[in-house]
Amino acid sequence: MEDTLSYMTKVTGPLELIRPDVDRALQRFLDRQRPAFDDPDLIAVMSAAEDFLAGGKRLRPAFCYWGWRAAGGGADPGVFTAAASLELLQASALVHDDVMDSSDLRRGMPSAHRRFEKLHLDAEWSGSALQFGEGAAILLGNLMLIWSGEMWRTSGVPVASLAAAQPVFDHMLTELMSGQYLDLLEQAHGENTFDSALRVALYKSGKYSVEQPLRLGMVLAARSREPWIDRFCAEYGQKVGIAFQLRDDVLGVFGDPVETGKPAGDDLREGKRTMLIARTLAAASKAQAHDVRNLLGDPKLDAEGVARLREVIEDTGALAYCEDMIGRYLRDALDSLQTAGITADAREALAALAVAATARRT
Amino acid sequence: MEDTLSYMTKVTGPLELIRPDVDRALQRFLDRQRPAFDDPDLIAVMSAAEDFLAGGKRLRPAFCYWGWRAAGGGADPGVFTAAASLELLQASALVHDDVMDSSDLRRGMPSAHRRFEKLHLDAEWSGSALQFGEGAAILLGNLMLIWSGEMWRTSGVPVASLAAAQPVFDHMLTELMSGQYLDLLEQAHGENTFDSALRVALYKSGKYSVEQPLRLGMVLAARSREPWIDRFCAEYGQKVGIAFQLRDDVLGVFGDPVETGKPAGDDLREGKRTMLIARTLAAASKAQAHDVRNLLGDPKLDAEGVARLREVIEDTGALAYCEDMIGRYLRDALDSLQTAGITADAREALAALAVAATARRT
Repeated sequence: MEDTLSYMTKVTGPLELIRPDVDRALQRFLDRQRPAFDDPDLIAVMSAAEDFLAGGKRLRPAFCYWGWRAAGGGADPGVFTAAASLELLQASALVHDDVMDSSDLRRGMPSAHRRFEKLHLDAEWSGSALQFGEGAAILLGNLMLIWSGEMWRTSGVPVASLAAAQPVFDHMLTELMSGQYLDLLEQAHGENTFDSALRVALYKSGKYSVEQPLRLGMVLAARSREPWIDRFCAEYGQKVGIAFQLRDDVLGVFGDPVETGKPAGDDLREGKRTMLIARTLAAASKAQAHDVRNLLGDPKLDAEGVARLREVIEDTGALAYCEDMIGRYLRDALDSLQTAGITADAREALAALAVAATARRT
Repeated sequence: MEDTLSYMTKVTGPLELIRPDVDRALQRFLDRQRPAFDDPDLIAVMSAAEDFLAGGKRLRPAFCYWGWRAAGGGADPGVFTAAASLELLQASALVHDDVMDSSDLRRGMPSAHRRFEKLHLDAEWSGSALQFGEGAAILLGNLMLIWSGEMWRTSGVPVASLAAAQPVFDHMLTELMSGQYLDLLEQAHGENTFDSALRVALYKSGKYSVEQPLRLGMVLAARSREPWIDRFCAEYGQKVGIAFQLRDDVLGVFGDPVETGKPAGDDLREGKRTMLIARTLAAASKAQAHDVRNLLGDPKLDAEGVARLREVIEDTGALAYCEDMIGRYLRDALDSLQTAGITADAREALAALAVAATARRT
């Protein structure tokens, strides 16, 4: 792992480098929309969008930007705007996710539907505050989904770049929604095998978090979807994407609430059928398997229950197994960078990004 | 009203004329998406989208198409595809609306979230069937929202047409979401005055059902957003749009369930704060107002309660008042057609469409 760890010193580099430009692009876009939200009744919607967007890691914009650089893209302010549109897409997905999972917290703040529920309660309006909160959050998610597409299309990158990359963007959106549906299905009746857990990791998150943002940037720069780009994105992008989601799965069970901004063991309470759980069940004794089946997915799971599940996940070797998988996917991704025909600065940045995406604690 | 009624014989004309082309365009678009839903687990999503799309009136595509013709647009198969994309947008809005309102029925069939809930129940999957149903419906609505934009952009109309009309399309989407949020607010704490009821009627529905589809078609044809187009859309479009929503409000209380495909008095059970209710409360005696406040918005409202509310709405003259408003808005819209500089066949079709949109029973 030494070669991997040596990259860690550069972890913040490629994310921090683009953050000011991405943030400015988001601010400019929201400012353009603001006049339509001038009405005192609508200000709450715009504030919710702004607060929500302030918190992201800008990981997807970073993969898009460094994809652009990897395929030879030069200085063009439009690319930051195009890349930043992915942050709106991610914000939309999280707002809707939290409604679907009835999650209370996101990034250490109340989730959007809880925020609107509180607005209703504080003002002592009539009707169901819960229903108002969920309805408003669905609409906020829709708004950010729409805005993502609009921001992407109006970024100002050359017309030929946009024409080449638009089908990738469209496909990514459809894939995101069907991936999330597959995730719902996996919780409801999944076999929770290694294969099904990997499929969900890839489609629900890996593809739209890493592979597709990277492809978008590369196709924007190349102005055509060249076969070498697809090969590189499938190689490096899918490996980092899967490792990214596996890290998410580990953080969902073992993450520090102060850092993740979500309650401890949240994924256990929601009964998420991840690779971690698939491996736990495959290696569990009868007594261990009995505890997992009893506790996993219990909405009222307390600290003791979380501790017991964590113990089983560690004792069965599932945690070590997943950490090992993350390490292997990461090394393979880093290897694929060595032979790729991309620019030198992008090679270094994508290596650091791969580490940032998989070694993160939030 | 004689001059109005004389148009009624032509009511089905402009809708029926375009229906086959709109339906074919929708089918072609879904066929293009189908390969991505080949997975046996995803077929349910595609079927839900198809079944849902089969039921629409094609009113929004009709306003778009006749807007195109009104501004001199000729034979171009792309315009049917562009117009048909509005049916996907409407389907998305209805699917999300039904989640937000917890409605069981839509167009005489189970609403999307109930359909997915039933899938879960029938298969005896684990976890909450209700939560699965709502999550799947949110994703289905997102998918149709995304597809609407993609279908619109890839319709094949000339590039200059699309470039001129895209900002109108983008603005319509933002306006739709904020209009629906205003509607939620109106239910929660609205003053339920004439003004607030009119604002909701216009922003929640009128604009995106009539005025904006019409504007889209006209700007596509003219390849620029000319001032006379804006004037005509604001004149004719807003009047028909408000009358359209007022008719919706009347049908939500007095509609025949066999024709509307929704339970009798559904809007009363949901406590919708419409113009009909604003007028009822403004003219009600103390006893009548007491009954309205007691019964309106009761989720368990029975046939007797619906009958009592209908009685009050009729006895206060609110029903007659709203019918009169619809008639006046319609006549004004028809008048504005007489002086508009649009083509003769579009003038006739838009007159018939105005009647169809406001005299409908479903």
